[in-house]
Amino acid sequence: MSSPEPAGLVAEPGAQLLAEIREQPAALRSLLEHESEYARVAAAARDRGATTVRMVGHGSSDNAAAYGVYAFGLLPGWTALRDSITLSVYYGAQIAMAGSTAIALSQSGRTIDVVDYLGRARSTGAFTVALTNEPSSDLAQEAEAVLPLAAGTESSVAATKTYLNQVAALGLLAAHAAGEGRRFAEGLRVVSGQMEELIPRLELLVPRVAVAFTFVGRMFVIGRGTEFATAREIALKLLETCRIAAEPLTATDLAHGPVAALDSLFPVWAIASDDASLGAVVEAAERVRGAGATIVASGNAADEIASASYLLPTPKPPSALHAPLLSVVPGQLFAWALARAKGLDPDRPEGLAKVTLAR
Amino acid sequence: MSSPEPAGLVAEPGAQLLAEIREQPAALRSLLEHESEYARVAAAARDRGATTVRMVGHGSSDNAAAYGVYAFGLLPGWTALRDSITLSVYYGAQIAMAGSTAIALSQSGRTIDVVDYLGRARSTGAFTVALTNEPSSDLAQEAEAVLPLAAGTESSVAATKTYLNQVAALGLLAAHAAGEGRRFAEGLRVVSGQMEELIPRLELLVPRVAVAFTFVGRMFVIGRGTEFATAREIALKLLETCRIAAEPLTATDLAHGPVAALDSLFPVWAIASDDASLGAVVEAAERVRGAGATIVASGNAADEIASASYLLPTPKPPSALHAPLLSVVPGQLFAWALARAKGLDPDRPEGLAKVTLAR
Repeated sequence: MSSPEPAGLVAEPGAQLLAEIREQPAALRSLLEHESEYARVAAAARDRGATTVRMVGHGSSDNAAAYGVYAFGLLPGWTALRDSITLSVYYGAQIAMAGSTAIALSQSGRTIDVVDYLGRARSTGAFTVALTNEPSSDLAQEAEAVLPLAAGTESSVAATKTYLNQVAALGLLAAHAAGEGRRFAEGLRVVSGQMEELIPRLELLVPRVAVAFTFVGRMFVIGRGTEFATAREIALKLLETCRIAAEPLTATDLAHGPVAALDSLFPVWAIASDDASLGAVVEAAERVRGAGATIVASGNAADEIASASYLLPTPKPPSALHAPLLSVVPGQLFAWALARAKGLDPDRPEGLAKVTLAR
Repeated sequence: MSSPEPAGLVAEPGAQLLAEIREQPAALRSLLEHESEYARVAAAARDRGATTVRMVGHGSSDNAAAYGVYAFGLLPGWTALRDSITLSVYYGAQIAMAGSTAIALSQSGRTIDVVDYLGRARSTGAFTVALTNEPSSDLAQEAEAVLPLAAGTESSVAATKTYLNQVAALGLLAAHAAGEGRRFAEGLRVVSGQMEELIPRLELLVPRVAVAFTFVGRMFVIGRGTEFATAREIALKLLETCRIAAEPLTATDLAHGPVAALDSLFPVWAIASDDASLGAVVEAAERVRGAGATIVASGNAADEIASASYLLPTPKPPSALHAPLLSVVPGQLFAWALARAKGLDPDRPEGLAKVTLAR
């Protein structure tokens, strides 16, 4: 008969995830130490006329890329897309990529098809950039330029600080491409400070909200524009750690079909930020409430969602493009708290590994 | 006291949806009558060097656009993207669109922000094309070129023949851009014939499968490459008509998190087509089965999914790019049959209207 492990050696479920959520303000500041590298890569892309931005990545990396579409569109006015890996890597499509900057996002730098994509992009004329925590990885070696994520070691299967720094990195690169890099970087420093205050406050508030969702099996997470990336990322955290069928939708997608599925057992998380997309989110929330569903509202305009039952507000950011860095945090902490309420260990999601080599 | 309506006047629930599913082979043939218009628009795009294709639409139209990414990538080798409406219309981003063909997809031609997008695209230099059932709509008037969908009047809220013809139309346009229009059109004619045989066969088979899903509340629908559009569209039919939280995922997305949510009460629909993406779908299905979930497999390589409990195979198409036209049909009929098994009327989904003006 084996003796029980001493209590001091058994980590509390979710302790690792919580520790990494808390490290985010510091991770942002680490990224800022590399600002000059971001400025250089932006200048190189501009000099080469590589103004179509093709981003590839899986999971949280792909979610961050959804933010990149808006950062590059709003700052330098470049066309940015989440490119299809399947098209190049599996189907072997011959797409001329001169005039493109291809940015591969991979925490580990070891995701096989992302590495393969970048090699093909380079051979068809793209300016290739690796955005990774591992500057000596296969991915970094395949790329012409390497941008360090500088998030530090991330051990949790559920990415938090890596996602945060990917969003910040894409924003910083886009801002430098537009000649507004310094201002954006200063904003990141402000956000880091806001987050230092936000996290402890939410650590107290969020578990009291999350407990009401203990038996929830499905949710929608709605956001629009820059916050669609946040909706995708919060939904992924809920799927990974809480085993909830959480689907991200734009406010408009919701009205085009999915609203029909809602009822009082099918809650909706709405991310409301104070920008030109807010009206659409407010209207969508009214439709959700009309269908009898409970609403959790987060973001810096959460209090505009009059029909919300739960509010998890975040501070006003220095600019609208900084908002997603703050509005993801309530979702991260909600996933952590709800997993525990459900009796799951968010540090050990079933069937997942940190580095996914699956194609 | 009002007298009951005579039975002959009360339509059976789902009769309208079923009628429109059955009209699909004829709708495809109607589209082919307009082939020369597709050839002309493709030539105009090529002549203008407008080889970046920006597609916009909501709901089923946006799903069809996901197919367009592959059709334009594989046939003429053009970069195609589902563009962000929010970026241009709500945020007012100034993106230079010279060198782009902007294709707006709207059955009714009345979707306000799609019309607005097309006007902005035109003013920044894009070649603008409306793909619509209504050639005299606001959308058509905003565009430089109009391509008729020719699907005929669609009354069901859940789009079927409109989606089918949007997919066929994007394929036909891409094929003409690549100088392979005639061959693709001949393939569409073959598909129309295959579908004439497929639909009655599935009408008998599918209800017997669907009944087992009567109490299902959530599903994933997985597909990859050209079949990701099909996964999106089948998931939307299940949401709209069956009130199932059905989320479309690529085979790879599934492995990067969502697989953790699966259990025996959370079935997965896998679309397996015989192309270079099949291996990834087969591997994903094995992971799904390992998590204890039940699998429905459809598509022309359905029988490659050894772990599937239910098979809904479709015929081998003339080319891999024709496959999605056939593989969506089992999903349409499944949604029709399952809604009835759940006691819902698929012709009257709760809270939805045919023309969505919501922004």
